[in-house]
Amino acid sequence: MRLESDKAPLYAQIVSVLAADIAAGTLAPGARLPSEDGLMARFGVSRTTVRKAIESLVARGAVEIRRGTGTFVGAPKIRQDLTELSGFVEDMVALGRTPTARLLDQRLMEASKEVAQRLGVAPGTNVYRIERVRFADGVALSFDETYLPAEIGEKVVSNDLEAEPIFTLLEGKYSIPLIEAEYVLEAVTAEEHVAHALGVPIGSAIFLIERTSFSEGHRPVDYEKLHYRGDLVKFATTLSRRPRESS
Amino acid sequence: MRLESDKAPLYAQIVSVLAADIAAGTLAPGARLPSEDGLMARFGVSRTTVRKAIESLVARGAVEIRRGTGTFVGAPKIRQDLTELSGFVEDMVALGRTPTARLLDQRLMEASKEVAQRLGVAPGTNVYRIERVRFADGVALSFDETYLPAEIGEKVVSNDLEAEPIFTLLEGKYSIPLIEAEYVLEAVTAEEHVAHALGVPIGSAIFLIERTSFSEGHRPVDYEKLHYRGDLVKFATTLSRRPRESS
Repeated sequence: MRLESDKAPLYAQIVSVLAADIAAGTLAPGARLPSEDGLMARFGVSRTTVRKAIESLVARGAVEIRRGTGTFVGAPKIRQDLTELSGFVEDMVALGRTPTARLLDQRLMEASKEVAQRLGVAPGTNVYRIERVRFADGVALSFDETYLPAEIGEKVVSNDLEAEPIFTLLEGKYSIPLIEAEYVLEAVTAEEHVAHALGVPIGSAIFLIERTSFSEGHRPVDYEKLHYRGDLVKFATTLSRRPRESS
Repeated sequence: MRLESDKAPLYAQIVSVLAADIAAGTLAPGARLPSEDGLMARFGVSRTTVRKAIESLVARGAVEIRRGTGTFVGAPKIRQDLTELSGFVEDMVALGRTPTARLLDQRLMEASKEVAQRLGVAPGTNVYRIERVRFADGVALSFDETYLPAEIGEKVVSNDLEAEPIFTLLEGKYSIPLIEAEYVLEAVTAEEHVAHALGVPIGSAIFLIERTSFSEGHRPVDYEKLHYRGDLVKFATTLSRRPRESS
């Protein structure tokens, strides 16, 4: 037994106090945190300890540093269900938020090995790539790369992709039903292109979803790389225990 | 229509070539990438462009920079299924890897507001916190904080937690069946404590899983924060489309 009654490290105690203030609303979303000097005085600790505490709160996404202006309480993360195949617009509407989109690019290109494998075509085959930024209530939430087989893509890109969700076009306008999707979930840091699209610093946490959607006959019709801002979203699901054989 | 036939930016083309070399095994896991000068010569580009390409590969987790020695091809990420409630040891055994654990700390402490809420107790109630690093084939993969209600925790901590998985103890030794768990998934960056436990730089990508496991009667019996190395793991699941009402 290595039980000890002593307390957690100083910075962790400060994190707990500030996190509790944020959870209780004493520090409301958008509020400015006290200055480093203020926190040093309040807790009677060194600047190093205060900075460690703030760094920890930044890593949790609880606060954000705006260069030159101070440290602010962030909005609570948007919690999205990850229980069925759904599109961005559907997700945002379900959460009572207003979705919008900005089209950055759309082009015909040769499929890389990775894209070709997901879409079930030979590498070098022409596919469409569409790059969009998706917004919730005006805040950039996700940078999406969408790859479509050429015969589907040429129809899809003839629409206004800032107004029309691709899922709605596939299912509604082009009668391509979506049946299921394979999701691969990763935590990465933002490289320059992604950081720029989302308006976050390079190195920010990104929740990356690679999603291959299938139509009837397990035909892949849509491969996407969804780069969500890690400081703004989290995903929730419930999983059941497999019955134990020994029990 | 904004279709263009021109190519992607230079750095992105280099990323594609190197990623293809890695995928094809021409650049094998553990191999050293050519030097910046070598890549500049090979592709006829500036150092800035080479650095941007490498930064992009690092963000994807395809390569890792070892300070003072060079840039190396990383191991492919371990792909774990996220389809049922399972413990670390079960996951690693299913993948043919050898799981081990290092116990960093175990102690009785007062539940924070967050922990209390998850375990269904009043804030300030005594709970056990257990900190472990979990290894796959000797590589630190996850830093786990486990919170247990006091009456369960005092039994659990009497065991050798470097040898005994907590799920096995709960189900096998203490007859507390696990039924299901609520998962919350986030991408964050590593703060000092987590970075140190995992042996990665502060700011590295972390795939954070918060998991509350329930026994019969939806009784919460185990709340965990699992900090997985983002550069080493990814999670996969399949989700079905909800039948459209309009179809």
